[in-house]
Amino acid sequence: MERINNTIAAIKPLDEKAMAEARIRQDNLTKPQGSLGQLESLSIQLSGIKGNPRPRIVHKVIFTLAGDHGIAAEGVSAYPPEVTPQMVYNFLRGGAGINVLARQIGARVIIADLGVASLLEPHPELRNKKVAMGTKNMVQGPAMSREEAIRSIESGIELVEDELTKGIDILGTGDMGIGNTTASSAIAAVITGVGVDKVTGKGTGLDDKGLQRKVGIIQEALKVNRPDPKDGIDVLAKVGGFEIGGIAGVILAGAGHGIPVMIDGFISGAGALIAASLAPQVKPYLIAAHQSVEQGHKIILEYLGLKPLLNLDLRLGEGTGAAIGIFLAEASLKILNEMATFGEAGVSERA
Amino acid sequence: MERINNTIAAIKPLDEKAMAEARIRQDNLTKPQGSLGQLESLSIQLSGIKGNPRPRIVHKVIFTLAGDHGIAAEGVSAYPPEVTPQMVYNFLRGGAGINVLARQIGARVIIADLGVASLLEPHPELRNKKVAMGTKNMVQGPAMSREEAIRSIESGIELVEDELTKGIDILGTGDMGIGNTTASSAIAAVITGVGVDKVTGKGTGLDDKGLQRKVGIIQEALKVNRPDPKDGIDVLAKVGGFEIGGIAGVILAGAGHGIPVMIDGFISGAGALIAASLAPQVKPYLIAAHQSVEQGHKIILEYLGLKPLLNLDLRLGEGTGAAIGIFLAEASLKILNEMATFGEAGVSERA
Repeated sequence: MERINNTIAAIKPLDEKAMAEARIRQDNLTKPQGSLGQLESLSIQLSGIKGNPRPRIVHKVIFTLAGDHGIAAEGVSAYPPEVTPQMVYNFLRGGAGINVLARQIGARVIIADLGVASLLEPHPELRNKKVAMGTKNMVQGPAMSREEAIRSIESGIELVEDELTKGIDILGTGDMGIGNTTASSAIAAVITGVGVDKVTGKGTGLDDKGLQRKVGIIQEALKVNRPDPKDGIDVLAKVGGFEIGGIAGVILAGAGHGIPVMIDGFISGAGALIAASLAPQVKPYLIAAHQSVEQGHKIILEYLGLKPLLNLDLRLGEGTGAAIGIFLAEASLKILNEMATFGEAGVSERA
Repeated sequence: MERINNTIAAIKPLDEKAMAEARIRQDNLTKPQGSLGQLESLSIQLSGIKGNPRPRIVHKVIFTLAGDHGIAAEGVSAYPPEVTPQMVYNFLRGGAGINVLARQIGARVIIADLGVASLLEPHPELRNKKVAMGTKNMVQGPAMSREEAIRSIESGIELVEDELTKGIDILGTGDMGIGNTTASSAIAAVITGVGVDKVTGKGTGLDDKGLQRKVGIIQEALKVNRPDPKDGIDVLAKVGGFEIGGIAGVILAGAGHGIPVMIDGFISGAGALIAASLAPQVKPYLIAAHQSVEQGHKIILEYLGLKPLLNLDLRLGEGTGAAIGIFLAEASLKILNEMATFGEAGVSERA
């Protein structure tokens, strides 16, 4: 727990002076004030995070964390659990959606096993942070022990810190794990206090009957485990997942090291809920890349006070939405840095 | 008019076979079907436009057309008319928002004078397609003659055709013109049939009183000119603008040459209304990059049956939204082309 506490202790408030200077510059660029909307506000947030009124993004890193879920045995997913390791191999070969989009934006992808339920073949690009061989089935008891929950968060912190020497100007979160929308809905219900039926969606493709069943299973898991909504580690342990804990750790480490954190979709949102419950001061470091089709995501974003950049009906995860969000973050800073001011361009200001 | 008619005659329906093949491939890529939302549907539309189930985007071109508006004399803009030529020079020096975003996505920007109300200094990168020294004040009579309206559309077609030898895999539209939201609102009101107050917004930054005044002026211009909603050239001539006509021409030429057309914001939307009124068959070639803050834009997009990719509260114009939209179009095709299929990756399909 010490590593988590130290990371949280290092989170500073955003730099108000850098933000004020960035705001002044935005208002002097050759465009009507505010006319680049969310790109303007995003550039100012990034300035505050980086403590620099004209920051740049060079090194972009997306952390795609994988874990399996005991709850998958209850038939809550349209896909079988063996898809988790298969997709990890797909990531390592560069054939998945996140690989394609990361290549397009020039980001490194860090693939990590936080708790896949099988032994993965070693690979130079695979970070082995396996906490256990998948979580336990949460309708029968806690998904993991409190120690494992802490270990998963600390593993996320380690993943970020291992990359610091190569440089991280912005990071994105991502996930892979058959059954993980079920765990994420459970986390969302506990922490936001909204009903299970409102935060549960069809995941990778359940039908209406499957959705109904999934809601019932989550309700049962909450009844069996009674997680404490005020204790993020208890919530993670009882109804979470290893990759979700890892994402919470990645988020805490980003904030602790002054790195903007681009949150992907629903599962990353659940990780953000855990992180924010441990350290509410992470919130100003968060950027919501998109609003997922998964209905609970809207509730998570509202709870965290985040306005999504994109609404493209995405629901893939892996960090795919985060990759597009990072492109927009970069765009916002290029605007801030490269556009001419009214004075420089000799353009008249408004009457 | 012959060039316009020939261009329209060349517009083919989308290639259904290419679209069906692209759909099959999307459904076989290693992700739940439909999980990349609008990126999937966009890739299929692009396949249909290009008549190729796996098209690629290499050459990206944004056409940023400038023109002045006689109606600016009525005080309908927060900025003085001299900003139009000043911004053209800013474009040519690379200091404007569109230059920054075009550099980020690797697009060429074609800057053209369709009807700026002053003589611009010649510049190797400035296309001179000046139809006249700005439109006339439309509260006193038609903004331009019918011949000038035709000439502005033909100029847009010429701009596209001049670039064909260098390659255009996708094009974006963009505008610059003080007063042009007023003309665009007038066009939107006439063609969609929606009330002037509903399609008129604050442009570059009017206050509430200024907005009220702008609505009154547009209503007056419509009363004075009585444009025929069924005749796009009549609408353009009476209440349009040279850059709006140019944009209509760019759109028609894109469709005629089988090039996907990324529509920017409100003014480009007005150009699309003119284009679609002349040739409804352009619609499948159109992609709406974003939904502008300018309230009439939503009405235009609904009228054209377009769902915007982005909603970032943009209202700058110039093609800035189109640039980001082109990035997404490229992303959608990279997904289609570069992701592994279930078979290739050895990933299990859904149960």
